[in-house]
Amino acid sequence: MAGVLIHQFIVEGLGHISALVADEARGVAAVIDPRRDVDVYLQAAAERGWRISHVLETHLHNDYISGAPELAALTGARHVIGAGAEVAYEHQPTREGDAIDVGRLRFRTMETPGHTPEHVAYSLADLSRADDPLAVFTGGSLLVGAVGRTDLLGAQSAEPYARQMFHSLHDKLLAQNDYVGVLPTHGGGSLCSKDISSTPSSTIGYERRHNGLLSIPEIDDFVRALLFDQPGYPRYFARMRPINKAGATPLGTIAGPRSLAVAEVQALIADDALVIDARPYPDFAAGHLPGSFAIPAGSSFGTWLGWVVPDGRPLVLVLESVDDWDGLLRQALRIGYDDVRGHLSSVADWRAAGLPLETGKRASVQDLAALLEAGGPDAPLVLDVRQHDEWVAGHIPGSIHLMGGDLPDRLAELPRDRPIVTICRTSNRSAIAAGVLSRAGFTDVTWVDSGVPSWRRAGFPIEKGE
Amino acid sequence: MAGVLIHQFIVEGLGHISALVADEARGVAAVIDPRRDVDVYLQAAAERGWRISHVLETHLHNDYISGAPELAALTGARHVIGAGAEVAYEHQPTREGDAIDVGRLRFRTMETPGHTPEHVAYSLADLSRADDPLAVFTGGSLLVGAVGRTDLLGAQSAEPYARQMFHSLHDKLLAQNDYVGVLPTHGGGSLCSKDISSTPSSTIGYERRHNGLLSIPEIDDFVRALLFDQPGYPRYFARMRPINKAGATPLGTIAGPRSLAVAEVQALIADDALVIDARPYPDFAAGHLPGSFAIPAGSSFGTWLGWVVPDGRPLVLVLESVDDWDGLLRQALRIGYDDVRGHLSSVADWRAAGLPLETGKRASVQDLAALLEAGGPDAPLVLDVRQHDEWVAGHIPGSIHLMGGDLPDRLAELPRDRPIVTICRTSNRSAIAAGVLSRAGFTDVTWVDSGVPSWRRAGFPIEKGE
Repeated sequence: MAGVLIHQFIVEGLGHISALVADEARGVAAVIDPRRDVDVYLQAAAERGWRISHVLETHLHNDYISGAPELAALTGARHVIGAGAEVAYEHQPTREGDAIDVGRLRFRTMETPGHTPEHVAYSLADLSRADDPLAVFTGGSLLVGAVGRTDLLGAQSAEPYARQMFHSLHDKLLAQNDYVGVLPTHGGGSLCSKDISSTPSSTIGYERRHNGLLSIPEIDDFVRALLFDQPGYPRYFARMRPINKAGATPLGTIAGPRSLAVAEVQALIADDALVIDARPYPDFAAGHLPGSFAIPAGSSFGTWLGWVVPDGRPLVLVLESVDDWDGLLRQALRIGYDDVRGHLSSVADWRAAGLPLETGKRASVQDLAALLEAGGPDAPLVLDVRQHDEWVAGHIPGSIHLMGGDLPDRLAELPRDRPIVTICRTSNRSAIAAGVLSRAGFTDVTWVDSGVPSWRRAGFPIEKGE
Repeated sequence: MAGVLIHQFIVEGLGHISALVADEARGVAAVIDPRRDVDVYLQAAAERGWRISHVLETHLHNDYISGAPELAALTGARHVIGAGAEVAYEHQPTREGDAIDVGRLRFRTMETPGHTPEHVAYSLADLSRADDPLAVFTGGSLLVGAVGRTDLLGAQSAEPYARQMFHSLHDKLLAQNDYVGVLPTHGGGSLCSKDISSTPSSTIGYERRHNGLLSIPEIDDFVRALLFDQPGYPRYFARMRPINKAGATPLGTIAGPRSLAVAEVQALIADDALVIDARPYPDFAAGHLPGSFAIPAGSSFGTWLGWVVPDGRPLVLVLESVDDWDGLLRQALRIGYDDVRGHLSSVADWRAAGLPLETGKRASVQDLAALLEAGGPDAPLVLDVRQHDEWVAGHIPGSIHLMGGDLPDRLAELPRDRPIVTICRTSNRSAIAAGVLSRAGFTDVTWVDSGVPSWRRAGFPIEKGE
């Protein structure tokens, strides 16, 4: 076996792609942009007998907590990051043109500001084959079918950063040969851009020809196109960069499931803990702990936690199955919800203890149509919680739009004297939104168990535009 | 999520790379060159809710049993294979230029004979982005850093197939744009070529510039270079193409471990079963069932099974841990060793039943040097079982070379009246060879527990050349 081996690790909900890059013959490897739970890299390297000699980061991340300091500490690897990052812990600052050798692999730093000011990309050459790079790790700059957004550090820097991005793309990345691979950190599902393709890799030549943002010749037009209609992003984003700059608390071993008795959960709630109910929403609606958040298990659990749950408080999970524990805990840890105390033994135990449960109401699109048809003072307000572009593409006439993630900050805009029906595309976000409303004391909340596409397919009217 | 998603599945020992290629938005997928144990594709597709609509094969494989007919039968997918394959079961024969649509993905057939006469490659375009292909599935034609060999169907066709390969490469594959990805079926470790890079993917442009075989302008020179010094390959290869042409027996569910009592193993041995001891060689040497083969567990288990164990007989495994069962069974099934009956409960049980065990002898490189230094009639014959190119690069003076896989066919060339010491690079192949010799009745066999590099590092003499 000879040559470079690149293994990408994908975290779906975050749209995060890290990579383990090894010189197999020499048994040495680098990790690019590790996620916080670094055991996956340690395990993959141990299985092959590889030593991790370098941890390379493309930028200070806004969307997750970096595992780079912990991985470097555990392995003795050098932690390389753009000099502009000025992180508070031991690292190797890198600048344009620096060579970082990992066995016979050579990474070379390309300063590519825009997504963030200290952003760098790393080209990769396999010297056992050629000096010529075979790929470039583009971080949050050039993505597959997209370009990293530049507005995450605030509205005032969005445009100057977009101008930097234009130059990073055209002067640096597109100066690479067509056949150079493109391996970004942000993939499909990431909120660090929009419309990113699912594919975790591409090539310079393919993107040069088929990435719309790269074919805009004028910088002003590019800036407008890049900044246009970017999706909202969770409030937790604001906390990530400072944490990554300071260096996050090391996780050590990921804790196994801890079952909590009813009395323990009661005590935790009394002590300010929040309850996150990760069961399927029909179970939540049938009976949940008063004041709990509904965030059904799935790859977006972490992102929704970051959207709607205040940080800095102890958390207790309610699970459908204890098998969900590990995946959900990792999602919470990746975005800095570190204080997960355990999971309620079972909702049946809670009920058996004679403690109160709350319930939620559910409606099909036919039920909703009937309610709207009936009209009168009891006619519900339909709250569409999808992203803005989904709303513009088609919504129920008379419904109002408020992106689900913004709900906690905008509760005051909603009437408390009318029934509210939440709707989204599939029922996941409408369930989360219904949970937020219930928790906030809205008493008549109904959730639509399908979504706007079902409404449309059932032949009910749709309105387009703002 | 939108666009194509390509997931490669790598079987290390075989150097086999298959791929699941999905149109995420449409929820439909194709599998390229599936291995025999197809549960991995079914599971991956089920997790994402994808329907597998097509199974595409690039050629009739020589190195493993295809899972394509079983996967097609289980999913209702169409099985597409080059028209020249003329397989005996239901399929969709494909020819130059055919379009195969999977959602908004478009595969296009490129006839690329050489590795085998019916070989096709498939370009892949993601129509949601462009008509232009983004990658080509090259099967056994263009590999990463290498080119598929053309001598597997016999010496007489090696040269004409090499000439076809030259045209397939230059007229078809290199006519693609530089930025098109290269996704081959044969990767590092495969015996379908030599010196294949570990990386499972590359690009047309990178290979055009840095693949030595592609830079040879004259066809005659290319043919000589391609056919020069290809490694030996296991005898089981000869059985694969006819089996794949006829369509292999479906596997159904992969059986779980079946522990066999001593009496059951005795009965199986009496009924012609062979015992394969997959424990680490020191355990084998300390005591093994008479006549058993030593093939230590690991990614090359299947390949060595195919090299040294006669086919068509029932097999019984001896395991260090029952955890090894699933991986080893799959390796056996992939190359057509279907009749694995179970594993011996434990060697201790065998011993406790008062049944005989045989032992093997072990030597360090220092022990070996002392034996050779002593000389005389008891001086051992050193048998180097590595590949030819390893032998040429440096071996112990006075040792003889016989590639381990050829041993079963060439036992008559070895003396039965002299001690024999087997050596390789690391001790794995020398252990397998020692087991083959012991089983064949050689009574004084010693295995070197390190290898030629250790010999060299210890300062003992090395001879180069044939």
